[in-house]
Amino acid sequence: MNKTLNVALGNRAYPIYFKNSEISLRHTITELREAKREIRILTDVNLQESQSAYLKSVGFDIAEVIRLPAGEPTKSLNAYAQTLSYLAKENLNRDSVLFAFGGGVIGDLAGFVAASYLRGIDFYQIPTSLLAMVDSSVGGKTGINLPEGKNLVGAFWQPNAVFIDTTLLKSLPAQEFSAGMAEVIKYGLLADRALFETIESSDALTAESESLPAIIRRCCELKAHIVAQDETETAASNGRALLNLGHTFAHAIENAAGYGEYLHGEAVAVGLILATQLSVKLGQLEAAWVNRVHSLLENHALPVRLKSPLEIRVLMTAMQRDKKNRSGSLRFVTLETIGKAVTTEGLENAIIETLWKGVGAV
Amino acid sequence: MNKTLNVALGNRAYPIYFKNSEISLRHTITELREAKREIRILTDVNLQESQSAYLKSVGFDIAEVIRLPAGEPTKSLNAYAQTLSYLAKENLNRDSVLFAFGGGVIGDLAGFVAASYLRGIDFYQIPTSLLAMVDSSVGGKTGINLPEGKNLVGAFWQPNAVFIDTTLLKSLPAQEFSAGMAEVIKYGLLADRALFETIESSDALTAESESLPAIIRRCCELKAHIVAQDETETAASNGRALLNLGHTFAHAIENAAGYGEYLHGEAVAVGLILATQLSVKLGQLEAAWVNRVHSLLENHALPVRLKSPLEIRVLMTAMQRDKKNRSGSLRFVTLETIGKAVTTEGLENAIIETLWKGVGAV
Repeated sequence: MNKTLNVALGNRAYPIYFKNSEISLRHTITELREAKREIRILTDVNLQESQSAYLKSVGFDIAEVIRLPAGEPTKSLNAYAQTLSYLAKENLNRDSVLFAFGGGVIGDLAGFVAASYLRGIDFYQIPTSLLAMVDSSVGGKTGINLPEGKNLVGAFWQPNAVFIDTTLLKSLPAQEFSAGMAEVIKYGLLADRALFETIESSDALTAESESLPAIIRRCCELKAHIVAQDETETAASNGRALLNLGHTFAHAIENAAGYGEYLHGEAVAVGLILATQLSVKLGQLEAAWVNRVHSLLENHALPVRLKSPLEIRVLMTAMQRDKKNRSGSLRFVTLETIGKAVTTEGLENAIIETLWKGVGAV
Repeated sequence: MNKTLNVALGNRAYPIYFKNSEISLRHTITELREAKREIRILTDVNLQESQSAYLKSVGFDIAEVIRLPAGEPTKSLNAYAQTLSYLAKENLNRDSVLFAFGGGVIGDLAGFVAASYLRGIDFYQIPTSLLAMVDSSVGGKTGINLPEGKNLVGAFWQPNAVFIDTTLLKSLPAQEFSAGMAEVIKYGLLADRALFETIESSDALTAESESLPAIIRRCCELKAHIVAQDETETAASNGRALLNLGHTFAHAIENAAGYGEYLHGEAVAVGLILATQLSVKLGQLEAAWVNRVHSLLENHALPVRLKSPLEIRVLMTAMQRDKKNRSGSLRFVTLETIGKAVTTEGLENAIIETLWKGVGAV
């Protein structure tokens, strides 16, 4: 397995380090210190405790760590303001560097802080969750939530490098590992049938699985390729939006259920079922695939229908509000076949409402 | 006078409209409505009252206006959060468009909101103050203040167009017009001796001066040229940083005096005196220029020394903190001659302290 993957973004290109990434990380930290650049690491209190040995071993100093509470509420304007004020109080200048050490919440928040402090400083991602490794740490989408909805504020701001160390996953709770698997399975569905079938043909993946590092690398490769074609998601069709397979449904579930009821990956799992069913309904995909997607998700302890009934009316309204929509028309990602997704617009509401009913909405 | 000036920034190039800019503005609004794109206008309560006829005449609807309190405190995380929540509540999508109608505070805030709402929407600048017309509305620097200092958070986000209508200046208070003149004079000093001498050779400019539109256009032209060379101020020397002539001093004055004591342009005026004196001290500029700069500023009712004594120690600390500094070394813009500025680093603190003493610091 090649150690490094390059995200081809012209003068903002950057490497993702895989095997022995801690050596590259240690090297990067040493170089920054030699250049007398100030370093700060944003993380959460749980990780700072459980991974303090790791942080020390790669060369960080405990005094450089900024700790925030763990969990989604940290992805807020409040934590954003707090972090910015901290950097300002410490007189950090434009040459300073921010590392994100954590899952999607920490990575997205740190990225937006880095994008906007002094109108932009360098930053690095060290994802610690499966979801962050295959998805949020790659591609430069950063942001925070508003009381009105998730990820409504942010910036496209690419990291200078991403360091992926799968040994960090060994302390991840099983439910969070599963949630990450929903995104892994998503990549198979939207861009790589062989990946889907590789996962299908073996036992359920865990943090200990020997095949995991190669699978994570493959997901990053697929994402990097899509992002390089359409960095800021402005393509009129397909493009970066394809990464949102299942997500229009998932965001509606998270929103209607109240944030915290579903892990993001759990909502994505239900969304993938709905997107697969929609693809069959549109005559694009063979019906047999619904069962295969269903089995693979269940095999990874992921939900395939709503945990408890949500109102169709509320779900539909939440979908209308999704920021992926342009000029009012609902936009979905559907499958032409397993491994090939397309964006689809102009569907009748009735089709979508029937799908919602099928997963337990009322 | 050519109507339109183009800011050459590749695929983010945009026009600045001057003569009869309200016709271009009305046309733009009509086009946006035809494309069914939602429009919002950010302004302050004073302008909304005093310019309601203007807003209506170009085609805005009163229901589209977002009003914030007038003044520097509005350039805060608080007003930023409030505006974002408002846009989210109204379900504005990525095709929505934000207009800034105001001075630097409104323009900078609206720009950062546009840069970060849904990771970026289109925005337009309609500057209403002299300072905003010649400086803050052009070049894509957007941002807000933190309790720790000014402009510490923001983004580079270029407008889609700037509409400059000098008739709007007729209702601007005289002191604010003067403050804008400090930036106008700055352009002469740093990039155009002929501009400096044009202003010098006539009576003090006012909002009624016939020569004003051409002078404003010339300032925008100079700024657009510099910005096109170094959009994100990353040049190791010279580049966009030259626009900060006098500003390292000015920011220190504003910070030490407490925000609100000096209009930004007033602090810049004192900063221009200090930068000119520094240039003479370094043997770059003939001493006679200090008096000419002094006279021109005074002639426009601008301060040329501190309004009341500030502590040198406090001013020096504030300078150290200025975000323009890289890796700890103080950085100044000085004049090689009138019309040609350069960045200068590695000066002794003693030189700067002596200059501060000369304008009344203790």
